[in-house]
Amino acid sequence: MSKQQVNNSISVDPASGKLGILLPGMGAVATTFIAGVLAVNKGIAQPIGSLSQMGRVRIGKRTTKPNKPLISEVVPIQNLKNLAFGGWDIFKDNMYEAAVHANVLDINLLNKLKAPLSKITPMKAVFDKNYVKKLSGTHVKKSKTKMALAKALMADIKKFKTDNKCSRLVMVWCGSTEIYIEEGKVHKTIEAFEKGLKENDPQIAPSMIYAYAAIKMGVPYANGAPNLSCDIPALVDLAKKTQTPIAGKDFKTGQTLMKTILAPGLKARALAVNGWFSTNILGNRDGEVLDDPDNFKTKEVSKLGVLEEIFEPDLYPELYKDFYHKVRINYYPPRGDNKEGWDNIDISGWLNYPMQIKIDFLCRDSILAAPIVLDLAIFLDLSKRAGMSGIQEWLSFYLKSPQAPKGRQAIHDIFKQLHKLENTLRYIGGHDLIHHLGQDYE
Amino acid sequence: MSKQQVNNSISVDPASGKLGILLPGMGAVATTFIAGVLAVNKGIAQPIGSLSQMGRVRIGKRTTKPNKPLISEVVPIQNLKNLAFGGWDIFKDNMYEAAVHANVLDINLLNKLKAPLSKITPMKAVFDKNYVKKLSGTHVKKSKTKMALAKALMADIKKFKTDNKCSRLVMVWCGSTEIYIEEGKVHKTIEAFEKGLKENDPQIAPSMIYAYAAIKMGVPYANGAPNLSCDIPALVDLAKKTQTPIAGKDFKTGQTLMKTILAPGLKARALAVNGWFSTNILGNRDGEVLDDPDNFKTKEVSKLGVLEEIFEPDLYPELYKDFYHKVRINYYPPRGDNKEGWDNIDISGWLNYPMQIKIDFLCRDSILAAPIVLDLAIFLDLSKRAGMSGIQEWLSFYLKSPQAPKGRQAIHDIFKQLHKLENTLRYIGGHDLIHHLGQDYE
Amino acid sequence: MSKQQVNNSISVDPASGKLGILLPGMGAVATTFIAGVLAVNKGIAQPIGSLSQMGRVRIGKRTTKPNKPLISEVVPIQNLKNLAFGGWDIFKDNMYEAAVHANVLDINLLNKLKAPLSKITPMKAVFDKNYVKKLSGTHVKKSKTKMALAKALMADIKKFKTDNKCSRLVMVWCGSTEIYIEEGKVHKTIEAFEKGLKENDPQIAPSMIYAYAAIKMGVPYANGAPNLSCDIPALVDLAKKTQTPIAGKDFKTGQTLMKTILAPGLKARALAVNGWFSTNILGNRDGEVLDDPDNFKTKEVSKLGVLEEIFEPDLYPELYKDFYHKVRINYYPPRGDNKEGWDNIDISGWLNYPMQIKIDFLCRDSILAAPIVLDLAIFLDLSKRAGMSGIQEWLSFYLKSPQAPKGRQAIHDIFKQLHKLENTLRYIGGHDLIHHLGQDYE
Amino acid sequence: MSKQQVNNSISVDPASGKLGILLPGMGAVATTFIAGVLAVNKGIAQPIGSLSQMGRVRIGKRTTKPNKPLISEVVPIQNLKNLAFGGWDIFKDNMYEAAVHANVLDINLLNKLKAPLSKITPMKAVFDKNYVKKLSGTHVKKSKTKMALAKALMADIKKFKTDNKCSRLVMVWCGSTEIYIEEGKVHKTIEAFEKGLKENDPQIAPSMIYAYAAIKMGVPYANGAPNLSCDIPALVDLAKKTQTPIAGKDFKTGQTLMKTILAPGLKARALAVNGWFSTNILGNRDGEVLDDPDNFKTKEVSKLGVLEEIFEPDLYPELYKDFYHKVRINYYPPRGDNKEGWDNIDISGWLNYPMQIKIDFLCRDSILAAPIVLDLAIFLDLSKRAGMSGIQEWLSFYLKSPQAPKGRQAIHDIFKQLHKLENTLRYIGGHDLIHHLGQDYE
Repeated sequence: MSKQQVNNSISVDPASGKLGILLPGMGAVATTFIAGVLAVNKGIAQPIGSLSQMGRVRIGKRTTKPNKPLISEVVPIQNLKNLAFGGWDIFKDNMYEAAVHANVLDINLLNKLKAPLSKITPMKAVFDKNYVKKLSGTHVKKSKTKMALAKALMADIKKFKTDNKCSRLVMVWCGSTEIYIEEGKVHKTIEAFEKGLKENDPQIAPSMIYAYAAIKMGVPYANGAPNLSCDIPALVDLAKKTQTPIAGKDFKTGQTLMKTILAPGLKARALAVNGWFSTNILGNRDGEVLDDPDNFKTKEVSKLGVLEEIFEPDLYPELYKDFYHKVRINYYPPRGDNKEGWDNIDISGWLNYPMQIKIDFLCRDSILAAPIVLDLAIFLDLSKRAGMSGIQEWLSFYLKSPQAPKGRQAIHDIFKQLHKLENTLRYIGGHDLIHHLGQDYE
Repeated sequence: MSKQQVNNSISVDPASGKLGILLPGMGAVATTFIAGVLAVNKGIAQPIGSLSQMGRVRIGKRTTKPNKPLISEVVPIQNLKNLAFGGWDIFKDNMYEAAVHANVLDINLLNKLKAPLSKITPMKAVFDKNYVKKLSGTHVKKSKTKMALAKALMADIKKFKTDNKCSRLVMVWCGSTEIYIEEGKVHKTIEAFEKGLKENDPQIAPSMIYAYAAIKMGVPYANGAPNLSCDIPALVDLAKKTQTPIAGKDFKTGQTLMKTILAPGLKARALAVNGWFSTNILGNRDGEVLDDPDNFKTKEVSKLGVLEEIFEPDLYPELYKDFYHKVRINYYPPRGDNKEGWDNIDISGWLNYPMQIKIDFLCRDSILAAPIVLDLAIFLDLSKRAGMSGIQEWLSFYLKSPQAPKGRQAIHDIFKQLHKLENTLRYIGGHDLIHHLGQDYE
Repeated sequence: MSKQQVNNSISVDPASGKLGILLPGMGAVATTFIAGVLAVNKGIAQPIGSLSQMGRVRIGKRTTKPNKPLISEVVPIQNLKNLAFGGWDIFKDNMYEAAVHANVLDINLLNKLKAPLSKITPMKAVFDKNYVKKLSGTHVKKSKTKMALAKALMADIKKFKTDNKCSRLVMVWCGSTEIYIEEGKVHKTIEAFEKGLKENDPQIAPSMIYAYAAIKMGVPYANGAPNLSCDIPALVDLAKKTQTPIAGKDFKTGQTLMKTILAPGLKARALAVNGWFSTNILGNRDGEVLDDPDNFKTKEVSKLGVLEEIFEPDLYPELYKDFYHKVRINYYPPRGDNKEGWDNIDISGWLNYPMQIKIDFLCRDSILAAPIVLDLAIFLDLSKRAGMSGIQEWLSFYLKSPQAPKGRQAIHDIFKQLHKLENTLRYIGGHDLIHHLGQDYE
Repeated sequence: MSKQQVNNSISVDPASGKLGILLPGMGAVATTFIAGVLAVNKGIAQPIGSLSQMGRVRIGKRTTKPNKPLISEVVPIQNLKNLAFGGWDIFKDNMYEAAVHANVLDINLLNKLKAPLSKITPMKAVFDKNYVKKLSGTHVKKSKTKMALAKALMADIKKFKTDNKCSRLVMVWCGSTEIYIEEGKVHKTIEAFEKGLKENDPQIAPSMIYAYAAIKMGVPYANGAPNLSCDIPALVDLAKKTQTPIAGKDFKTGQTLMKTILAPGLKARALAVNGWFSTNILGNRDGEVLDDPDNFKTKEVSKLGVLEEIFEPDLYPELYKDFYHKVRINYYPPRGDNKEGWDNIDISGWLNYPMQIKIDFLCRDSILAAPIVLDLAIFLDLSKRAGMSGIQEWLSFYLKSPQAPKGRQAIHDIFKQLHKLENTLRYIGGHDLIHHLGQDYE
């Protein structure tokens, strides 16, 4: 396989062969993702919400007829027709059964995909009830040490690659939110972490074991939950060492998506914010898990961070000092996977006159998450082939609590994230960056 | 006065002397603006919502301690302490009386500013009931031709400048929405337009006469209403000829502000939009004027345009083709100036599953408009001193229906507009542009 | 058939034999109603929203174990298993085709009812485009005079009764809203009206011809649209003469239902109302018809009336004088039959401090209307058998703009309407009325 | 003072002399109430929200011109001009200071009432931090036993009556919510309760000591918080013994008010309810107290009860079985006393098709509570003069969790409550009850 020279600074391997996508956690999100890709390939649905499939990037100047090719025309991404799906779950239902149980997609659609979905069955999961108290599973690996579990996962990965004749793999965590864990000594270095694996350190949660297994083998890894997982120095270092791109954490879907759209807008106009109250009702497995305060803590920390960085109260004390931010999640079974996020924002304008914004987002958890799984998988694979490793900050766009380069604060403003993503694609594709000055064409 | 060399390409005159701000239409918006600036200067209020006063721009790389000076530290803008205010209105109330009548600001605040507000009285307006049927005024100029009216305005401007010892002037239209007029022959060239002024062409509305008077004299002109005003080829050409910067049209305040924040967010994520329904209730003079279908038409056209450009249905037919966009404005007296905008957005995600977003914006019309008046005045004056003339597209950020360079479509995405505004400030200030790639610091 | 003596004052014929329900207008509402009854009879759905099927009435004192039998145990109502359905429409689709086209009910449900639904086909309608400009139909009766059309309808009714072996009939108007017509001379007396029928008086709309045909034959008639129809003195008199119970007008479904629930609550607490703004978005045939101002006028008058009567501004000037009431309906195709009603209510409390209530009702037009069709049919038939004729004010509960006895104002408060309905059922059933004093059991 | 014979069954003492209103807890609600009555008496404000002052009751038949006199014309109620105000608080601020601090009423209004408000100062409170952890006060009585505290209160009451030359007194609890206490042995009998007072039983909370003091002295007592207070058998018995009317518990103001308006409306129409989610944001002292889970528990129990009784899931299993009801209260300082209640209600209609209702109530806590304080005081005094004692169920109208006669379930439907209140007034006034049958005038 020869490198294709696309510009002065970067060359990208072609997207040849089959890409295997491995999913720890094969519930609502994973089944919606897999069934969706199958449906798209069958021509009976569209991958709406997926930038990698539907997005375009402007190349060159803003002429009277600007050039806006599809992303797939700018960079060499994997074709959807050439994917394999696998993963692990604590229940042994195949993907058809799991999708029916998740009750996200219409049964008529699922029935059309029954054959291929039924063929995909989860491998036994690495799971520990201490990290997710509300769940119990039976389809679980048993080993004496966490290192042994990691090795079992690596064996699974190897076998999956061979069995499915994959050229390359990526892994995207689609499992539940674990209890809150703060970064500690065991997370600092690769050595400490590997020692912890062998000694069953309680600070090492299952999602870290998956991340370790993937990164160790050079498989790009993305983390869709607010768990630390790969967001610890030990695994960031390992990723650089094994030349593996990683991205975390927490899919940016409903309410936080809206927040990182709206907050930059208010900031742009120098409108002051006095308070932001966000509440959610949802009735799926995620809602149930988050009903436990220890697990909610993890999610809360992930959700609370975004406004602080966007508003910069230190730089703008008259506008954002002491703004009150509260986030609540309520388990509310009548809705199932159909989440509702309600926000009230108290703002002030000219001379401090108060105003209010209320947003009610009637959304669908897994429908919003599925295309993110796809894009992270596709773009991490692209990163890998482009020789980029470690934290892929340009994928912050998809994440509630993005990992940032050491010493830098994460960027949450979705439009800066998009700008970074697009310019990264231009950069990989060998095109000029865009800065929107526009003095040149006048 | 010597040009200050700030970078290779551009030099800016210093902001010395007094700047006079002239306002055609001295009602709710104008009084809120003037009273606000007086209150800020007195130290009893803050110019929230004004980027020129409170905003910062990042200069240089995203280091661990990024440099984000105030805009006034990046470019030489006029100091608020050195302004003079004047204008025209169809009622002869002074600014204290007009502000009390507008009922936007608290009476306690107005009473603290009674002396300076009372001193500002409007000049007689150029007004014609045929263009705003719901209003009648007595404080109105009488002349046989529209050209004579334009000359009377020019005499007013000259006198105001002398009387108030101003070094420079800017004009910002704060008057009502006029009836819908489409661009016609009389608007095509300077010659045709001046002929039309002399022959009282009905296609020349009062707001065009003000724009003509200002631009003819080299006074920068901004248009806060959806009227064509300076958005016609004749006046754009005149602006280039007299080296006058101009910006229009229609202050981007409540609902459209929200729309151009949210729509780019949905587009960014490749979420499909099936329908967008926007309704407004408001009870001020603006609401009353827009209760007339002819005047509403002008506003409707201004408001409807934004989504089309942001969503690009031609490029993204699967996502945005045939989305249904409806905008309604309802005169509802119980609220006065306190507008409420309610939006329902029907979107689709992965595999076309439908979701809904509802936004309720309890806003204040004049409170949102006042800082825009200030910023347009401050930045147009900066443009003038920087030798920039014609359409100032970098001020699109403030406008619902921005004028664009010939042959280009206006940009409505507020984040692209902001990016352009910030990079223009960096450019004027002689700093590197920012493109958010961020590969360099890794 | 012998009268059954149930109390001192009233005797009720038994509900023996088959009841035929005739529906002018067999679109979304009618098909949802018929398919629903068939589904209920098949045991695959429940008649939710139908008081006659699911409601209970307290009989006797509020003891520690109060007696609350089903309505069917209190009064002898027709059994759902013994109904026949028929009607008229301007399209000749059978009920299966029409239901599929209306897109209200799930296709899986409709397919289970395909056989019986397909058997029901509409008779040719009496229709005149002048009264509903947005519709055109081909399945239409042609006659020289309106009287001839009335006679043709009477022949249809007779034939339907024989063909379907019905013991009794009722008719419920489920057609569109006609243009606004005010009560005039031709509506005053039976003589004038019959003369008008013969002379094709333009003040006689199709819905009046149906009402005339039904009432003339002694068939109870209810009117689900805001058209005058049977709400004219001529037809009220005819109803008394032919001993026919009637009820009109305009099914009380979404927003007005909420309004007549909430307004009595605010009134109960002596909270002042300054303004009530109501807007609707809907995309079905009804929405399309109401996009025409002439037809909207009819609906607007029906919708605006309710608050005036509930709030009694003459008696409570400090609370309700000059409250501003505005109702808007917007045709918005993306939603189809799934209507959304948004209300903003500006209220004042203690010392006139302002507060706001916003209600967003995501409802379904035909789903809310269908059980009303059922209840009106069932209860009008009960009235007929109980010897009650003329305006059945106790059915106001179901109607936006109820007909009231001459000289009385209609009651809109849904709780007074319910109280009246329940006490009427107690009265027909021969039980004590309830007044909620409750001093007796202490 | 001679009894006035008003009808066969009941006689009412006249409302002569001065009525003293005693308020345990003189914070936001109490000051808003007192300042409001003073403003009303001064003619500068209106007692909106008070039925006793602004309400009317229909007397007699629904003729073409129905007779609807003011409540004060139907029963002899105390005149507002002849009231005295007093109470107890844990802070010694006078009513002007306390009102300024509460920040509910406009400072301009308060300044007009400064003299009379400043004269009213609280007596030292009975307070125990164990029952309200978030508060600390210094203006507190110290005694060895709870019985001694009760006696100190009785001495206060006696002194207040003499000092203010009152003919009669009433007491209305306006203090905070105490921690959750379940009815226990000590609450069962007067003897057990008085023994508990002497032995400092921890199950006796301060609000019970106030209630005991009042009832023991024959002073009518109402309870505006969800604390048990007088809702225990011992005090109910004592009330009958001392011929004292009582009413509790928990003022029905914002969200629960809306709930008991809307739920009966849904029930009336046999619409099914699958879930009801209610959340509140408020930033006043009440919000702070309820941020403690022990105190929230008390409020939650009070708020959750209402739907169960209205919907009767046992009688209507198809409609209301297993509906999910969740209530949340969030302390959110940016709003102060201006509460916001947001509800989402998931309902089903015909054939179980789902619909949603969302209600956003931007209300004001103390503004809604103040007129309830007034009405409870006025009507309890009326009850006392009418010889009615024990639980006044007809005042349930004002209460979230009304006390009901032994063995009966409380009624929560606000329209049944209103009907009961109105018929009680008719009964006291010697008029016919109304049952809304309406057959008689046809």
